[in-house]
Amino acid sequence: MSAKPPASIDALIELLAKLPGLGPRSARRAVLHLVARRSQLLHPLAEAMTEVAATARECLNCGNIATGDLCPICLDDRRATGQICVVEDVADLWAMERGGAFGGRYHVLGGTLSALDAVGPEDLGLPRLADRIETEQVTEVILALGATVDGQTTAHYISDMLDGRTRVTSLAKGVPVGGELDYLDDGTIAAALAARTRL
Amino acid sequence: MSAKPPASIDALIELLAKLPGLGPRSARRAVLHLVARRSQLLHPLAEAMTEVAATARECLNCGNIATGDLCPICLDDRRATGQICVVEDVADLWAMERGGAFGGRYHVLGGTLSALDAVGPEDLGLPRLADRIETEQVTEVILALGATVDGQTTAHYISDMLDGRTRVTSLAKGVPVGGELDYLDDGTIAAALAARTRL
Repeated sequence: MSAKPPASIDALIELLAKLPGLGPRSARRAVLHLVARRSQLLHPLAEAMTEVAATARECLNCGNIATGDLCPICLDDRRATGQICVVEDVADLWAMERGGAFGGRYHVLGGTLSALDAVGPEDLGLPRLADRIETEQVTEVILALGATVDGQTTAHYISDMLDGRTRVTSLAKGVPVGGELDYLDDGTIAAALAARTRL
Repeated sequence: MSAKPPASIDALIELLAKLPGLGPRSARRAVLHLVARRSQLLHPLAEAMTEVAATARECLNCGNIATGDLCPICLDDRRATGQICVVEDVADLWAMERGGAFGGRYHVLGGTLSALDAVGPEDLGLPRLADRIETEQVTEVILALGATVDGQTTAHYISDMLDGRTRVTSLAKGVPVGGELDYLDDGTIAAALAARTRL
């Protein structure tokens, strides 16, 4: 009795439902929205997706998203400042770039060390980071990792690995701009107090 | 200083952000998710979307999504029962089909009558619905429209339009299966009381 949507539509719903933030219901709604707007939205989206599928890949040097072997940041000589900022993933790299305060290059780990998930130093490209210290005459490695257990474990591992070969620093912990003390957790307040600065 | 994502990635983020349920932030997250899973997810999704963009269109008879001139329901002779169920959009048609209780054909309005948004009878394919009464020997038009002001206005308009030409019915209003009286609004309880049935 009950007719199903055409197979191609069903397949598209199933694939869209795998995106973070979408489930089966919202994927169905998105597909109906797309089919109702074929020329304005569905065709351009299909083309954009096909192009990204054909061209996007990881920068061989730093792990950023690139459309060639190297990403724009690794290709830009002005960013060879001798500083490398280590981030967990490409979203964090983009967040740093939006800040616009960092002028050097990056190293994207693609995750954090995790004994539970069997993620070791090789999976994060840490040997490649060590190589870059020599080849790019790096004077400072800035760790911009999350203030989580896994993030801090990874930070300590990298710090130990590079000990004596270059300066290793970490983003400051403290009160976020616009933050009110009343809403901050104890750990942040303790860290901000310990790292207090002279006015 | 601050490098942007490649233009093709930016374009994809901007298009994905137009889907219902996704905004700029979640679209960015979705694209990073896709690029990190190129072979498992990005390539299949690009192909599925291209195929749907090339094949999906509206059934010329009922307005359902089809991959040819007519949808599977209009092509199926067993569904020529003389009953037409009028629904607001394709999502509602799929909801009726999931229920599996209706064996006839559909008429998808694509909206409701609305003076504010200047949606008139022609925009909803109502003349075509009137034509179908003759050509498909329809004995009953079942209105499955939302219990909203616009939905009920549209239902009354259709009922007046088809008056005397065929039987026009509407989905019953009452207590939803699994519903508790305590949580129902007064209007639903009043409607359920007025339409009470003998056990």
